[in-house]
Formats: sequence, C-alpha cells, structure tokens
Amino acid sequence: MSILVNDNYNNLEKNYLFSNIAKKVNAYVAANPDKKVIRLGIGDVTLPLTKTVIEAMHKAVDEMADQSTFRGYAPETGYDFTIKAVQNHYASFGVELASNEVFISDGAKSDCGNITDIFGDNEILIPDPVYPVYMDSNIMCGRKINLVDANQENGFLPMPAGVEKKSYIIYICSPNNPTGAAYTTAQLKEWVDFANETDSIIIYDSAYEAFIKEDYPRSIFAVEGARTCAIEICSLSKTAGFTGTRMGWTIVPAQLVRSNTELNPMWNRRQSTKFNGVPYIVQRAGEAALSEQGYAECQENIAYYMENAKMIADVLDEKGIWYTGGINSPYIWLKCPNGMGSWEFFDYLLNELQIVGTPGAGFGKQGEGYFRLTSFGSHEATAEAVERIRKTL
Amino acid sequence: MSILVNDNYNNLEKNYLFSNIAKKVNAYVAANPDKKVIRLGIGDVTLPLTKTVIEAMHKAVDEMADQSTFRGYAPETGYDFTIKAVQNHYASFGVELASNEVFISDGAKSDCGNITDIFGDNEILIPDPVYPVYMDSNIMCGRKINLVDANQENGFLPMPAGVEKKSYIIYICSPNNPTGAAYTTAQLKEWVDFANETDSIIIYDSAYEAFIKEDYPRSIFAVEGARTCAIEICSLSKTAGFTGTRMGWTIVPAQLVRSNTELNPMWNRRQSTKFNGVPYIVQRAGEAALSEQGYAECQENIAYYMENAKMIADVLDEKGIWYTGGINSPYIWLKCPNGMGSWEFFDYLLNELQIVGTPGAGFGKQGEGYFRLTSFGSHEATAEAVERIRKTL
Repeated sequence: MSILVNDNYNNLEKNYLFSNIAKKVNAYVAANPDKKVIRLGIGDVTLPLTKTVIEAMHKAVDEMADQSTFRGYAPETGYDFTIKAVQNHYASFGVELASNEVFISDGAKSDCGNITDIFGDNEILIPDPVYPVYMDSNIMCGRKINLVDANQENGFLPMPAGVEKKSYIIYICSPNNPTGAAYTTAQLKEWVDFANETDSIIIYDSAYEAFIKEDYPRSIFAVEGARTCAIEICSLSKTAGFTGTRMGWTIVPAQLVRSNTELNPMWNRRQSTKFNGVPYIVQRAGEAALSEQGYAECQENIAYYMENAKMIADVLDEKGIWYTGGINSPYIWLKCPNGMGSWEFFDYLLNELQIVGTPGAGFGKQGEGYFRLTSFGSHEATAEAVERIRKTL
Repeated sequence: MSILVNDNYNNLEKNYLFSNIAKKVNAYVAANPDKKVIRLGIGDVTLPLTKTVIEAMHKAVDEMADQSTFRGYAPETGYDFTIKAVQNHYASFGVELASNEVFISDGAKSDCGNITDIFGDNEILIPDPVYPVYMDSNIMCGRKINLVDANQENGFLPMPAGVEKKSYIIYICSPNNPTGAAYTTAQLKEWVDFANETDSIIIYDSAYEAFIKEDYPRSIFAVEGARTCAIEICSLSKTAGFTGTRMGWTIVPAQLVRSNTELNPMWNRRQSTKFNGVPYIVQRAGEAALSEQGYAECQENIAYYMENAKMIADVLDEKGIWYTGGINSPYIWLKCPNGMGSWEFFDYLLNELQIVGTPGAGFGKQGEGYFRLTSFGSHEATAEAVERIRKTL
C-alpha cells in the first residue's frame, strides 16, 4: 500500500549540458585568471526592455496602486486588449485569427509542456537535434517517441518523405532552436499535408518568428491546410526580450478536431482549470511590445543581434566552415572543423581561443560533430571572438 | 487512425456557478434599474497593492530598462531572494524550510493543477464542498475520486475517523474555501497521522493562512509528522492582493518519499521542464510583500476585510443564523434560513434585499442549503448590506 508516483520520470535522462559547460568554463577561468573568456553560448537575450514596454509597465504598476484602476483576477486566457494585440500582430503578416483562438500564457515552455495534457496515448515525432522540452515533456507522460533525423544532407530541416504514415504528435520548431534553420512555405506545406492525411497534429513552435527576414512563413497558419492540423506556440521571450518578463501564447484553431473532439475548448478548459492568467502588468507590457512603436523598437534590438550573427557567418564563410542559421535566427549551427567532435571543439575553442559555445551533441545524437554559436552577445565581444577565430582557427 | 485526445475531459462537468449568478444578477438589474445591488459574492480582493509592493515594482521595472541590471531567464524555481523571503515568512511562525524545499510559482491554482503530473494512478480524497480545482484536475487525469462529507455536524471540518484506510492523495484547504472553517493543530495531526499510516499524501492548500488570527497552524509543517506526508501550496493572492499579479509557492519537503522515490526532485524536474519561472518584477513584488514593512501593510488590508466579516457575523448572530468562518478567513458560510435551498436563498436575497452572494450548492452536494458571503467588499457596501439583512431577514 503506497501512493504511486509517475514512474515515467525514471526514463528521463539528466541533462548535464549546461552544467558541464559551466564546470569546464569555471575550471578554465580559475586556472587562467588573466585570460578573457568570451561567451557565445548564451541562449538568453541581453539587451534591456525597450522604452515603450517600460513606460507601459510603469503605468500599469500605478494602476495597481489605485483602487479605482486596480486589477484582480484576469481572464485565464488573457485580457481582450492582449488578445487583440496578438491578433493584430498576426494580421500584419496576413494571418487572421479569431479572438477565442488565442490563449495568452506565461510563455512557450509552459505551453509546450502543458499541451500534452489534452492528448491521449499517441506516438510522438520529434526532430533530432531539438529543444529538449519536446522530448522530456513526452517522456514524462510515457509516450512512444520517434526521432526524425536532421542533418547536413537535409539542411537540418527533416521532411516527411520516408516517415511511416501513422498518426503522430509532430513537433516542429522554425526557425529552429538549436540549428537556426527555417522551413519555407513549400516545405511546411508538405508537413501540413502529411499531418492532415495521417490525422496527426503538428505542435508548431514559432518562438523565433520575429527574426525571419526573408520570405519565409512567420506562422504555420500562413500555410494552407494548417487550421485542421496545427497548434502554434509562440512567445515574446526572443521577440521583445521577455525571457525574464514572461508572456507567450498558444493558437488552437476552431477547426481543429481529432477523435470527434474540438481541441480549442479542451485547451480552454485546461487553462481555465490549471492556470490563473498572466499578470496584468505583464499583459500591458506585451500589448506595448506588439504596438507599432513597441514592435519597431523590438526590431531594432533584433537588428543589433543580427549584426552579430552576420559577423560570425562572415568569418565562417571565410574559413569555409559549413553552417546553417544566422539569417532568420539568432543561432548559427556549424560543422566542427577538422572532423572534431562537439565536445572536442568546445575544449579547443575554450582552451585556444577562450570562446565558449554550445556543443551540438547536447541537443541530440544527430548534433554530434556540430556546434551552436549565438548572436546574443555585445558587438564588442562578438567582434573580438570573430577576430580570434579569423586569426587562429 | 487518428490522434487520441484525453477522453477524461468528457467526464468534466461544466461549472455554471458564476455564469448562472451573473445571468440572474444581470436580469434583475435590467428589470430594476433603480435598485442598488450590493455584491457580497466576490471571491477576489478589491484593495490595491500596498505602497511597499508598488515601490518595489517600479524599481524592478527600472532595472529591466538598463542593460547593467536587466534580468533574462530566472531560475525556474525562483530567485534566491524570493525563496529567502518565503523562508523568513515561514520562520516567523516557527516553520523552518530548506531553500531547495521552496518552489516559487505563478500561483496556487497552477500548482494545484500541475502537482497531479508527478503522481501515478492513485485514489483521491476530497472534502465536499470544496474549491473545484482539486476535483477537476483529478478528473482530467482519470483518477478515482472519493468525497468526504463536510457538514454542520463536523463544523465543515471532516476528520479521518471513518475513512477507509487506503493510500490516497488527500486535499485539505485550511482556512477553507468556501466554508472559512479552519483546522486546529490537533485536528490536522489526525490527518497527518492517517496519511503517514496509510502512505497517503496530503496536498495542503494554505492560501488563506494570512487571515488566521487565533492560535491555529499557519502551515501544515507546524504539525509534527507532516514532513513525511505533505506538500503545501500557498499564494500571495489573498495575503497581498496578488490575484492579478500572480505569485505563489509550493513546499515539497526533502523527507517526502513514496514508492521509494523522493518527490522533491520530481517536482523540481516537472517545474524545470514545463515552467520558466516567475517574472523578475513579480518576484521583487513578492519579496516586498513578505518584508517586515510590506507584510504589515498586507495585514492592514486584511484587517479592513475582517472588519467586514465581523459586521456580517454580528448580524447573523443577532438573527440566530448558523455559520462558520469569518474569524480566520474572509469567507462566511451560513445555513440558509427557514430551510431554504441555496438557490432559493440566492433568489430571495437578490429580489428582496438586492444582495448577491454565492449558493453553497455550487461547491458540491454537501453545500446544498448553505450560502457563502465574502468580506472583500467596501465597508460602506458591506454595512448597507448588513443593515438590509438586519431590517428585513
């Protein structure tokens, strides 16, 4: 007689990636206190919140101080003004959403994890390498996980051709974390057609959509047929520097039906039961970030990061090192030179050039031999790192 | 071939309680535009955030505007300063917690819902009437639910005597929502002993602990033996008026083991995988609310609400109407006079006295014939409602 725990947790692997990196860097710094280490492994934004967002938050804080404007419980799925701001954002790239299709949340990671709640025991299809939450949240509920290989041959953009035709929950992240590769509309259409044909569901993570510069889709709902097979999860974390401010959203189209059940009211019920809404102050911040002026400021910050990406891409081009990303994404995913493994190259960069990056092997088996650099550093630090690579590598 | 949905959702009942109330009130107001309706059904705070909290938030917003003080991703389980503030709060009533036992979250509702993730297929024990989230979140994962009756005989504080000895997940809310009744230390000790004996787990919801005036336990961990059988979920929603600001926490003791598994690292893994932390600004607000000055201000607001509760309790005493709550809780739970049913009394109060309350039947079968009034209104409105009751009931 005892309470049973969720023993699927036993199947989780401990993720030592970032703690191993920290250990190696700390040891190097302790042994070489005079050396200047530059961190290009950061997956977090570094520029502060923009002026429009800050003003909106100060105003909202003042409203919370006055009984006549104080706000208590928010609607669990978001204030009308926040939902409207998201609708307007999507309309700016040609995607029309109904207000009850937009669910405001505290971020993409929560929604990616919690979306498993509304599904039964399905098989999962996940690209390798990938953002670890897709994998871990499904291991936690005991789902059978199928990996689809991303590799240099497919430009780290795996396609459905060759995948066994079954119903899956399919995870797609575009522009991709960690590879920075982005699907074209034609490529996404293949996935949408596959999902509709097999009665699958696509969980589409568009957290990096604001970095898209070229004519790539900003939302899966820009692709014909997606409203009958896809759920989209997005966030202001990278768009507006909200990693420590926390606002995102999930789109569940009204037309999305599986096993004779509409998924939109299911997600509504899930969120209304297990979530109590995003802070009023944060929703005002989100509204501001998506306003015309606010979004222009966000784009200035993104342009700053993308100048870093350009510097990194240029030196890799000079050296003839294969990479993807860095155009529609803050991430550059490169093949380790001279046949080095991911951790071997990590050690080389740290010890010889005092540059810290992220070993691709940490994101899945197919990441072995690859390496992630990010553009979230300062211009000065990135330029110095690039100069070291130019001289030494 | 199709994706399976979580068909446990089919077993959820739609909760029409608050929408039915709104419909009836709106119809009455439309038909009687000259009548002044007073709302004593509010389950939300109405006083604004306090000065210390507001100042802390403005300061944190300014920090987010400056690159040198900007904060990106927070630790998923909370900043050290927030955890320290919670530890100090518990120490103020004699409960010592280790820092890794405190998990900062966006509120009690999220944690109550999400805690089901770490358990297997256990039987559930829930008092009736009760806060609907305990029930619904367990229906969503297909658990067998056993109800234990709260009623006038047990003072709406059901005890384990008579409960079949099996392993359960036991939900206890004290002071209780909706009844306002609070367990003594001796009563909670009986539940703790029952849980340890049966290898059960208590999920203890202490969201109203700051309202406790008498010598009742503020935390289940004030009760001997609780560290081997209980998880506590708390929130600043009612303590500090954070219903629209969103911060709470869950305590999972290091000693809590079931099925040879430590639950503390499981909850840590759940939160690290499916949650990305509470906004920096909100954590600074929470720290401020729990500071000496901040908490004194919160207690002033609580004292204001409790003056309302006293007014309501006094008139019920005068009328000889049975009730519980109103001393260690903002809620008063009364027996409908003259044998009226919950909705019958609702209609009577609305039509004859123009007072809105909440029918007890909305919180479970055992709530039939009872009624909830709350102290979250203004002094003026509460005094007028009380005067109407005094004259007419």
